[in-house]
Parts: sequence; C-alpha cells; structure tokens
Amino acid sequence: MTPKPVAGLEPPYYTAVFTSVRPDHPEGYAETSARMQELVQEIPGYLGYESARTPGGLGITVAYFRDLDALTAWQHHAEHQAAKRHGREHWYESYSVHIGRVERSYGFERN
Amino acid sequence: MTPKPVAGLEPPYYTAVFTSVRPDHPEGYAETSARMQELVQEIPGYLGYESARTPGGLGITVAYFRDLDALTAWQHHAEHQAAKRHGREHWYESYSVHIGRVERSYGFERN
Repeated sequence: MTPKPVAGLEPPYYTAVFTSVRPDHPEGYAETSARMQELVQEIPGYLGYESARTPGGLGITVAYFRDLDALTAWQHHAEHQAAKRHGREHWYESYSVHIGRVERSYGFERN
Repeated sequence: MTPKPVAGLEPPYYTAVFTSVRPDHPEGYAETSARMQELVQEIPGYLGYESARTPGGLGITVAYFRDLDALTAWQHHAEHQAAKRHGREHWYESYSVHIGRVERSYGFERN
C-alpha cells in the first residue's frame, strides 16, 4: 500500500488500529477495500493510512486522524458502516479495534 | 504470530505502533525478533504483541502495555536498545513509531 511508513505527524493525533483475521482473498474484499481508501481521504482531518498482512495470518491496518472528531466522522460514515457490517457477515473471523491518542512519535530513515 | 487479535483489554492502556520497511529476510533478523518477543514478556505490565507483514512491503507491529511506565521500561531495555541499533544499521530502510494511549476498544468474533 504505502511505500514508506507514515511519518512526520505532530502529536497529538489519533490512531485507529484494526487487527483482523480473514481468508486470504474473500470475494468482493479488494473492491471494497479500495473504495474505503478512496472515501476516507474525503474526511477532513484524515492524515494517512497503512496496512500490512501476513499471508494466511493476521492483518493490521492503522488509520491516522488529526483529532477524535475526524476519526468519529469516519467511523460513522454510512458507506463505511455498511462495509463493516458486510465484513462481519462475510469476511472476518475476528477483529479488534484500538482507538488511541498518540502522544509521542519518532522515526528513522536510511540516508 | 498471533492466531487471533489481542482483545479484551480494559482501557486505558498504551500501544507502541511500529511500522517499518526492510528486506524480506535480512540476516539475523528472525533470531533477534524471537529473542525480543521472549524478553518483552518479562516486562511487568506487558499485555500483548501483534505483527503483520506484507511480503515485499510494509510491516506493522503493535505492542500493548498497561501503562506508560511499562512501555518505557521496554523502550529502555538494554538488549532491546542494542537490537534497535543493529536494526537501524543493518535491516531497516525506514520506520516510524507512534506511542499512544488507548481510550476505547472493541472487537468482533464469529460464533
């Protein structure tokens, strides 16, 4: 997805960490995922998005928002809610969501 | 790593989100990673660990701690610091760390 980690954000900001288990290529997943990535960018205060998935294992997605209002707007977005409902019915074995306020961040980049 | 997402934690707790880009199988990485997973469990207040990595792409690791003291103890652990230094010198192209206080969490599990 992202060629390099989201960096350079000034705390405080908010993250939604979404960890999930699902089959490797469930029907309709890729299209919905692409649509969600498009939609989330329209949310004022959206800062970025990262995703990783070990084949046959766990997936972790982190979405970054300027404040809790922006994060909540995305959670309550009607098309996003419909996609999550579809995901629970058809795709996910299990998932967890952790919503946090980032107080400190730093990074490294090879010269 | 984890067969299902870390769940059932009572907020507040702390997360360290580590996103990184590195080659797929750098020399010595697997051994160091296994050692770190062993060591972190000795930290009082450590709650869990999750990791996902898209082959050829981004890796995301999330570590969960009861409080900031526990998280800081892990950050300052001498062997962990040496491993991170080695990682910067030999493995990582880039990484970001986001340290946050989780205020809300929820999950889903298929029956």
